[in-house]
Amino acid sequence: MLFTYNYTVRLSDTDAAGVVYFANVLVMCHQAYEESLAVTGVNLKEFTSNSSTAVPIVHAEVDFFRPMFCGNQLLIHLLPEQLSDTEFEVNYQIVAVSFPEKPLAKATTRHVCINPASRKRTHLPEVIIQWLHYGCSDSDLSALKA
Amino acid sequence: MLFTYNYTVRLSDTDAAGVVYFANVLVMCHQAYEESLAVTGVNLKEFTSNSSTAVPIVHAEVDFFRPMFCGNQLLIHLLPEQLSDTEFEVNYQIVAVSFPEKPLAKATTRHVCINPASRKRTHLPEVIIQWLHYGCSDSDLSALKA
Amino acid sequence: MLFTYNYTVRLSDTDAAGVVYFANVLVMCHQAYEESLAVTGVNLKEFTSNSSTAVPIVHAEVDFFRPMFCGNQLLIHLLPEQLSDTEFEVNYQIVAVSFPEKPLAKATTRHVCINPASRKRTHLPEVIIQWLHYGCSDSDLSALKA
Amino acid sequence: MLFTYNYTVRLSDTDAAGVVYFANVLVMCHQAYEESLAVTGVNLKEFTSNSSTAVPIVHAEVDFFRPMFCGNQLLIHLLPEQLSDTEFEVNYQIVAVSFPEKPLAKATTRHVCINPASRKRTHLPEVIIQWLHYGCSDSDLSALKA
Repeated sequence: MLFTYNYTVRLSDTDAAGVVYFANVLVMCHQAYEESLAVTGVNLKEFTSNSSTAVPIVHAEVDFFRPMFCGNQLLIHLLPEQLSDTEFEVNYQIVAVSFPEKPLAKATTRHVCINPASRKRTHLPEVIIQWLHYGCSDSDLSALKA
Repeated sequence: MLFTYNYTVRLSDTDAAGVVYFANVLVMCHQAYEESLAVTGVNLKEFTSNSSTAVPIVHAEVDFFRPMFCGNQLLIHLLPEQLSDTEFEVNYQIVAVSFPEKPLAKATTRHVCINPASRKRTHLPEVIIQWLHYGCSDSDLSALKA
Repeated sequence: MLFTYNYTVRLSDTDAAGVVYFANVLVMCHQAYEESLAVTGVNLKEFTSNSSTAVPIVHAEVDFFRPMFCGNQLLIHLLPEQLSDTEFEVNYQIVAVSFPEKPLAKATTRHVCINPASRKRTHLPEVIIQWLHYGCSDSDLSALKA
Repeated sequence: MLFTYNYTVRLSDTDAAGVVYFANVLVMCHQAYEESLAVTGVNLKEFTSNSSTAVPIVHAEVDFFRPMFCGNQLLIHLLPEQLSDTEFEVNYQIVAVSFPEKPLAKATTRHVCINPASRKRTHLPEVIIQWLHYGCSDSDLSALKA
């Protein structure tokens, strides 16, 4: 699944320093992740309130290279990668539509599949496996990892 | 229940215009409401994920008189009022600790008690009735309504 | 200016009660307002950090008729109205794409044009006057007010 | 500067999965950082809108060990560390007041001092140097790093 999400920076994303508040960059990335799931047919209402499996984030990180301002039009490129039967990672690159050569920010979220009641690890559900491999060729992977 | 909540404006509350983003004033008010519930012994985790009753907001409004800036120390005065067997309202006044004479903002939230599954109205639960009348005399009411 | 904005509810908009957190409905409405400004050529970065004029919200209100869930696709219909030389109001109707007949929520924001340094009222800038009257006929107005 | 911040999880911090939305853990950490600055006398309004120096975050990361729920009372332990003349890092440990032995989450933010107009690196301002070394002994440092 190599996916690109269009996002326009909103006033609510910014802070009094005049630029996007740092944690909101991760919110944008998660929106791209949600949209990529929806594109492959995942019902987000059911998925996020599911009683048998959940895929919470266990680690997130983000690097900021250039500031983002209210009204900026962004592209968020997303590439997930399966790490094990119970775990996957999503890598994000954020670029400006007006200057896509250099990233504004890069981020990663790592997700573990659990049973929400017991909080024990469980196998990734079929919809996630399908999403992980949706339209994804080896060349896509090597390009984004470069 | 006449309650005062201390709140310090955070960078995440502000936007690129340099002041608190308008909708975040309602978020602060809701925090004051949550704290007032906790003070009377309500378990917020259970209360907000309860399967038999919920008290969603059906109306909210807010008036802004003066801007609020990052680091400002605020007092949020809260006064709930029961409207019927199934409905109550909470009135909020926000003032600066450094100048409590004139409000920075005023807000109201109106809540209706429902069964979350059927979304039908149901009687306010006992914990809410107790909270509504917690330490509240007629003089408190008439003072804040003036 | 009669404008419709497409919005998909994100996990970050929701809370532990399983539905959209009430104040986030106003955030969505403000996003629709920002997009309507952008459509008429307003540069949002300059507009929101302008040193000579600002149009802060002095009043906001919202009515909630039906809950909104993660993944829901919404239409936000927006209609601004000039109230005076220094003031305008924006009315919002939020409907589900899958059932546009009945609104999920309605909201209003009232904005006053000020000089951000002095916080004194000043005339609405030309870009706002143009936005207020952009493609807006009398029939549009009477239809939405009905 | 070894600092502990008390924080109560609010409904606005949670999402439809019933727990704190991942990016809001970084928001809480930043609130602790702001409070630690205020404690040493930094004026946050001036500091966050300063025209000569800013200390934006260039990297943030967070590990999640246990879920956090609405109403949970937390302690956020914070320890900053100067990395160079222009850079510092803040380490955060979040624990439950009711069970402080095992962290719920750990986070780090890395900040670089810049001139906000040119976006070029500049020396950390005196108020930050003072904050970095405020009441901080070698034993504090070795304890938290262990």
